[in-house]
Amino acid sequence: MKNILVIGAGRSSSSMIKYFLENAEKEKWNIRVGDMNLDLAQQKVGDSKYGTAFKFDALNPTERWNELQGKDIVVSMLPARFHLEVVKDCIKLKINIITPSYVSKEMQALDQEAREAGIIIMNEIGVDPGMDHMSAKKVLDEIEEAGGVLDSFESFTGGLVAPESDDNPWNYKFTWNPRNVVLAGQGSAAKFIQKGKYKYIPYTKLFRRTEIIEIDGYGKFEGYANRDSLKYRSVYDLENIPTIYRGTLRKVGFCRAWNIFVQLGATDDSYVLEGSENMTYRDFINSFLAYDPHNSVELKLRHFLKIDQDDYIWDKLVWLGIFTDKKVALKNATPAQILQKILEDKWTLKEDDKDMIAMWHKFTYELNGEMKEIHSSMVYIGTDQTYTAMSDTVGLPVGICSKMILDGVIKRKGVQIPIHKEIYEPVMKALEKYGMIYTEKQVC
Amino acid sequence: MKNILVIGAGRSSSSMIKYFLENAEKEKWNIRVGDMNLDLAQQKVGDSKYGTAFKFDALNPTERWNELQGKDIVVSMLPARFHLEVVKDCIKLKINIITPSYVSKEMQALDQEAREAGIIIMNEIGVDPGMDHMSAKKVLDEIEEAGGVLDSFESFTGGLVAPESDDNPWNYKFTWNPRNVVLAGQGSAAKFIQKGKYKYIPYTKLFRRTEIIEIDGYGKFEGYANRDSLKYRSVYDLENIPTIYRGTLRKVGFCRAWNIFVQLGATDDSYVLEGSENMTYRDFINSFLAYDPHNSVELKLRHFLKIDQDDYIWDKLVWLGIFTDKKVALKNATPAQILQKILEDKWTLKEDDKDMIAMWHKFTYELNGEMKEIHSSMVYIGTDQTYTAMSDTVGLPVGICSKMILDGVIKRKGVQIPIHKEIYEPVMKALEKYGMIYTEKQVC
Repeated sequence: MKNILVIGAGRSSSSMIKYFLENAEKEKWNIRVGDMNLDLAQQKVGDSKYGTAFKFDALNPTERWNELQGKDIVVSMLPARFHLEVVKDCIKLKINIITPSYVSKEMQALDQEAREAGIIIMNEIGVDPGMDHMSAKKVLDEIEEAGGVLDSFESFTGGLVAPESDDNPWNYKFTWNPRNVVLAGQGSAAKFIQKGKYKYIPYTKLFRRTEIIEIDGYGKFEGYANRDSLKYRSVYDLENIPTIYRGTLRKVGFCRAWNIFVQLGATDDSYVLEGSENMTYRDFINSFLAYDPHNSVELKLRHFLKIDQDDYIWDKLVWLGIFTDKKVALKNATPAQILQKILEDKWTLKEDDKDMIAMWHKFTYELNGEMKEIHSSMVYIGTDQTYTAMSDTVGLPVGICSKMILDGVIKRKGVQIPIHKEIYEPVMKALEKYGMIYTEKQVC
Repeated sequence: MKNILVIGAGRSSSSMIKYFLENAEKEKWNIRVGDMNLDLAQQKVGDSKYGTAFKFDALNPTERWNELQGKDIVVSMLPARFHLEVVKDCIKLKINIITPSYVSKEMQALDQEAREAGIIIMNEIGVDPGMDHMSAKKVLDEIEEAGGVLDSFESFTGGLVAPESDDNPWNYKFTWNPRNVVLAGQGSAAKFIQKGKYKYIPYTKLFRRTEIIEIDGYGKFEGYANRDSLKYRSVYDLENIPTIYRGTLRKVGFCRAWNIFVQLGATDDSYVLEGSENMTYRDFINSFLAYDPHNSVELKLRHFLKIDQDDYIWDKLVWLGIFTDKKVALKNATPAQILQKILEDKWTLKEDDKDMIAMWHKFTYELNGEMKEIHSSMVYIGTDQTYTAMSDTVGLPVGICSKMILDGVIKRKGVQIPIHKEIYEPVMKALEKYGMIYTEKQVC
């Protein structure tokens, strides 16, 4: 028997726990699932005789130390900032550990200790980061092996609503944390490099400088730039690449409409609106428009942001109910919190709705004096509201990679991310059985 | 003899120290001027036999305590965050103290102790805050005394270049801290209230929602909203006023051109540009524009921000040299730091240039069933680069108020700002002799 400990039974753990339980008999796995919320753990384990749900406080040193004893692998689905103490105990006890989170500086600093202990600390093995690394690195390695010289790498990922559940004018619903969607892109400018020139896009222009891409069978998408594309130069060992750009996918038309909220200031989370509790949605919009006793909120908004009468973004705005007299009913709320509430009224997945993960990479390179171009894309649709595309694409790579570590297929030690062929090849192959298939296309 | 201690001999102390020295013989004043920088203090005191310059570290408790002994009043021109320790010693030693800075919460908390010690802690007695309080409160009190019911109060102040030195297409030069000018308006949205409706303007729209005002003899100005107009409701005891708005003055046309930098992201101070040291001004602008091998930086900028070929803001941009190949020559610089450098090349006052302070208030109120309106304005031009309008309008109110306290004309104790008739009336009267004269006009 191999003993697996899963810490955290939240939304993103569903598919991974299911994977463990379904393979437990064949693989001789014994799975323990611990969460602060016992109900949550019990729901995920169900009546499987291979799993045990228990109440677990991973931040309690004694409780943690006792629970870790005798485990063969630990999967930490804790919020990223809480991994570190678990990892330190795993080093002492020589237990392999896996997380879907980004490698922090503090985590990276444990590399040598982990190697000495003979364990692997595998990170960034969800969807983004995770599947993006694996699918990109596969093509990048192939180009290098063929003797190609890379000219550009662009990569876009988006969590969206599946086409069969797409029934609103925004072609968007919340499939993950709504707050992150409302605040997306705030803070420092987005940075990337194009043809050797560093480029910066401030928040105020982020949703106007998008790139249109097409994925066969799924139509047109648009991508807005992620915060920092530059760091992937070192992650992928592409220090001298002239162009690198990472972005987030939406269906075409989303960004221009979303920009209305950005321009109004309705996504601001840095201050509280006076009397927010008794405001209506209409009052909320009006608070960003100049006083004018003669014109309606609608006319003032059209005029202020120069929205033509026949512009289709208008339908999107009206559909959200922003001009209605519905009460905000949130005390001391920031603009971002109120906007989130308005959006949650409309963008929440219905019971039968499915979500979708879309990913698209573009590589250009020179080979034998000719410019070549490859596109690689993957679209994956969820099953239901528990086994969502998001849960599957985060959880299955984690589960499969855990199996590869338990089976000794992955032999690397220390702090790792899945950018080595030894890791991405078997994991991607196993993922294909679950329908996570990348289509690679030699464009020229 | 009365003993005056001036702490801090920087730019804003020049006119105040001159005032003290000029009146020292008549008033029997002995003035000590202490600064970390002895040269600075010596320059300001010159060869006056009534003043002594000395090197002084006001943050050193022993040095401070010894120096404070025997003083009749202390003027603290330290950065606002450093006043508190000085004030606490003054309370113990029962010495009156005066600062031009905003009253912090910590300062306000000393009110009772100051009253018990029998001293006044006078604050916000420069130009803004200071002369704005006094000139506004004078009219507000008059309206109240006449039985008027206030409907709105708007107030604008600007530090500008004097008309006789205004020789550039922006009608603007730096007359104070350039960094503050570049960063103006960043952070939370500007808040105000109009006809009982709270209004919020985000940074991205701040320089497009301006108000045009005219000052007799000085032409048209435009005002953009200050961060928080609402707090003046409690300061001026106007809790239920339907409209209150405070703003910053520029000459007409400045804001629309400045907005180009805001939209580009060139005022951002939150991140560093890669390779800033070797960039040219042209590269700097280009880093905010999309890559395009076929079009010039000029054409890309016009296209991106929709600047018409005959738009006069173009001349302003070209005049600044932003399209030239001049080197930035600043290591690890933020966009805001680079923009500041570009502007300092062009907006620095020339040796004979004079600066100007302009202030304008508008009051509307109901009296005997009729709507009435009063405008109050003041324009003051500096003498030279030492006795600037900024230095005079900050320093003379401080100096004059110090005299009123020494003479016992101002009898109030505790933490004060100049909003009481007992204070503003004599100070404003004395300021008139220096040419700081408010013109009040009953518009209707």
